Amino acid sequence: MAKASASLEHMYRVFTKPEGKDSKLAQIEEHLSDNLSDFLSRHVVTKAKSLEEVEQHFSAHKVPESPEFVSQHAEALLDKLVAHSVNTYSPTFIGHMTSALPYFHLPLAKLLVGLNQNLVKIETSKAFTPLERQVIGMMHDLVYNDSAAFYQQHLHSAKHSLGAFCSGGTIANITALWVARNKLLKPSPGFRGVAQQGLAAALNHYGYNKLGILSSKRGHYSLAKAVDVLGIGREQMLMLDCPSQRLSPEKALALGQAFEQQGNKLMALVGIAGTTETGHVDPLDELADVAKELNCHFHVDAAWGGATLFSQQHKHKLKGIEKADSVTLDAHKQMYVPMGAGIVVFKNPEDSNAVRHHAQYILRAGSKDLGATTLEGSRNGMAMMVYASFHIFGRQGYELLIDQSIDKAKRFATLIESHQDFELVTPPTLSILTYRIKPRHLSHPDIRENELLDELVVSVQKQQREAGKSFVSRTRLSVEKYQQQPITVFRVVLANPLTTEQDLINILNEQHDLAKQTASWKVLHQLSENESAE
Amino acid sequence: MAKASASLEHMYRVFTKPEGKDSKLAQIEEHLSDNLSDFLSRHVVTKAKSLEEVEQHFSAHKVPESPEFVSQHAEALLDKLVAHSVNTYSPTFIGHMTSALPYFHLPLAKLLVGLNQNLVKIETSKAFTPLERQVIGMMHDLVYNDSAAFYQQHLHSAKHSLGAFCSGGTIANITALWVARNKLLKPSPGFRGVAQQGLAAALNHYGYNKLGILSSKRGHYSLAKAVDVLGIGREQMLMLDCPSQRLSPEKALALGQAFEQQGNKLMALVGIAGTTETGHVDPLDELADVAKELNCHFHVDAAWGGATLFSQQHKHKLKGIEKADSVTLDAHKQMYVPMGAGIVVFKNPEDSNAVRHHAQYILRAGSKDLGATTLEGSRNGMAMMVYASFHIFGRQGYELLIDQSIDKAKRFATLIESHQDFELVTPPTLSILTYRIKPRHLSHPDIRENELLDELVVSVQKQQREAGKSFVSRTRLSVEKYQQQPITVFRVVLANPLTTEQDLINILNEQHDLAKQTASWKVLHQLSENESAE
Repeated sequence: MAKASASLEHMYRVFTKPEGKDSKLAQIEEHLSDNLSDFLSRHVVTKAKSLEEVEQHFSAHKVPESPEFVSQHAEALLDKLVAHSVNTYSPTFIGHMTSALPYFHLPLAKLLVGLNQNLVKIETSKAFTPLERQVIGMMHDLVYNDSAAFYQQHLHSAKHSLGAFCSGGTIANITALWVARNKLLKPSPGFRGVAQQGLAAALNHYGYNKLGILSSKRGHYSLAKAVDVLGIGREQMLMLDCPSQRLSPEKALALGQAFEQQGNKLMALVGIAGTTETGHVDPLDELADVAKELNCHFHVDAAWGGATLFSQQHKHKLKGIEKADSVTLDAHKQMYVPMGAGIVVFKNPEDSNAVRHHAQYILRAGSKDLGATTLEGSRNGMAMMVYASFHIFGRQGYELLIDQSIDKAKRFATLIESHQDFELVTPPTLSILTYRIKPRHLSHPDIRENELLDELVVSVQKQQREAGKSFVSRTRLSVEKYQQQPITVFRVVLANPLTTEQDLINILNEQHDLAKQTASWKVLHQLSENESAE
Repeated sequence: MAKASASLEHMYRVFTKPEGKDSKLAQIEEHLSDNLSDFLSRHVVTKAKSLEEVEQHFSAHKVPESPEFVSQHAEALLDKLVAHSVNTYSPTFIGHMTSALPYFHLPLAKLLVGLNQNLVKIETSKAFTPLERQVIGMMHDLVYNDSAAFYQQHLHSAKHSLGAFCSGGTIANITALWVARNKLLKPSPGFRGVAQQGLAAALNHYGYNKLGILSSKRGHYSLAKAVDVLGIGREQMLMLDCPSQRLSPEKALALGQAFEQQGNKLMALVGIAGTTETGHVDPLDELADVAKELNCHFHVDAAWGGATLFSQQHKHKLKGIEKADSVTLDAHKQMYVPMGAGIVVFKNPEDSNAVRHHAQYILRAGSKDLGATTLEGSRNGMAMMVYASFHIFGRQGYELLIDQSIDKAKRFATLIESHQDFELVTPPTLSILTYRIKPRHLSHPDIRENELLDELVVSVQKQQREAGKSFVSRTRLSVEKYQQQPITVFRVVLANPLTTEQDLINILNEQHDLAKQTASWKVLHQLSENESAE
């Protein structure tokens, strides 16, 4: 095979001459553009290799010495990488929040890289800075619906910020809690603030033993990262049991008060609008009152559920979100933007000033550089994808998509409930639900039977994933019905607009067929026959 | 104009039918692919609008109610956004670290979005997880050059991690210092560790008054963010003056010792390999000894300079980097990957376990999910861009690019030095240099004259940016020659391989012409004439 030459001329060419129209890379591009679904079903192999086999393709540890031709490498990418990727576009991939994307993001991704702006500062982003501020403003309006005068005053103000664009919901949540910490432990006479003096001095100054954050056990794992990184400590992440899948305002208030009676300060209460595991929405309106009572920051993690605000029919489920001090939303979930578009919005445009910082060469005081109030530094122009989506879908388009997702989840719940060998565990509030296999003869499974059912679910979930036609995920939950014992359940996220009812029927049938072949299924039947015989 | 309809059928179509080949978006794509430079020079207007004018395009705060056709929106993107972006591809945009990218990233960006993997867990990334681990391993090898057996053991180990892929250098630096903090304040008898119990309890347990981090004043602003977010406090970010632009090991040791004599603990020493402002490299080898002496974590911020390790001729400048406990590298800088590819590597593959975390539904104990040891959660497959670049350039290709950048910087330094009205302020170690205008009659500018020179530089820099043909940045520096007074300088980053010597000559000439028309230039000449007359 011809080798690419390690000459400077060759390197310049990579920067100045595109690949020819008949090159491998151009073919890939065309296939992607013409029919993404076909591209993926042809190149992603369904009967997947094991992870260990795939790792063999990626076991070299040295950057290759010599250059390679682009097309030669494109071939390798298809064989080694694309073939063993996950087909997140597939209508039967309903196990996680990553779904099919609209086509227009493909050319926009190219435009994004072609422009290669850096949003940390205006000098490397220009129009992208006001665009991003507008996108954040639109998210803010979606949540808080403030007055036109409010947005006119704050949207492009150098002294304010309505939120921060982040690489994802985790950074958005951390940013919100960072702001909450710095606001609480702000400068006061004799004290220059936690940002300047640090956490130990701040607790000492304010006379607090510990800080704490409170949420339900369904809180996202990013909250645990946040209390770790912020120096609060994971033990101060107070997570309440929630067999109903929703945080009880009474229990939250009682726990918050008990925590404070020990000389501690509850820094923030976190409500969830669409839990990762079951899609439940906490009673935000009442939690807002609890936060007020406890005089603490109220953060809402609406990474998944935020897009529900587009729907006239369903937005009431998030009532009270407008009372939150900060809200996280992920545009890369139900707003169908590619991965990498988390946003946090702050009710009070002064709040981000609690984390404002400057440098000599950029982010000078008085500048509108976005990097002055974000946790991240250099960032790409992903806000363009959100901007384009807002315009191309419009509120009405999003409403249609959200409504059909929730309708579909309800229909799937009905399918499960009407099947004698399945049990619906958590019905859908939004478009997430959990269920499990429970053979018809088991009306009230005991502890031993539940353990066997757990094994059954794990086995079926793995086999179904490995068969490669469809994918549901699994998790472990405590639910009211089986309070003494967490159970393992299938978890389904109905985000993909292309998933049909027939897809769902097929998935259930496949699970049923797989279940009947497992050892646990047989053991369960024997147990039950023995019982009948007694 | 026809209106897009708010129907579910229309929404499905956006997901299933690409735009036609003669659509506006397809035209944009083709132009981008055929000739990126031409696309940008046609669409990015050179005589830019003011930021306030651009903000007018982005002043709405409501998500539009009705959908828009994709092509209709594409037109708007060109007019409102692309037209007022920054042409970072241009060879005369030499003010920041964002540069032209190789063509192959355009189709790869499309592939990335088409695949839309989520790297937080294997279930949504499969082959991308081992690929990312390999990319991190290659970066680790570039820095530490460990044995083949070492990489075989750790590259894909579920219990180890050689580093973390991050959205950028800021998150990479924060991750490194988070690990350093948690390692220092680890569990010990009677103490469950800072991650669990928090920072105040940790300082109390270990008997430390405060933690501190030490770097030179050229340290990146992300260090200040890190000490803020980690609860250490900005006042404990000890930044030493460095009129030579390099951190003095003797002064670092003395300051570290003095800090510890007050009952404090120096948590980390940060060396810089390529400072953002001048491109200097700290004496890493000696700083490693200082860190050893102080028994603290040694972090090297090589976000800019790390790629120098590809060059046989220049890598000696980074000698000692292999002694660092952690190193930050940005592939989106001198490795020519699109924005969003920061990496931190850890010498010790156990180190990331100091921040390891789990959840029920993903990141289960024993899994290889990448999210278990990263600060971020959901992330896209940007590692593919680094992987492809490593293969397409090869070490040799990168070496050629690095060598030519440094050569070009040296030639530019010579041009500046040989011009009687310019002063080279900091010569290039790597490919960054600073200089200023200093009319020939001013051999030893006094304080007043330096102030006028500052005004001159600011004025010329702004005018040149506004004229739109070229862009250099500016900063303020303390340098040995003018120790009593920080001065304002032009800052040039010679990263773009397409920048020619003629471009540099033109930029100097333009600055000279602009300078002669400024008020400060005239005042400086009058001052000097008065002096001569005295």
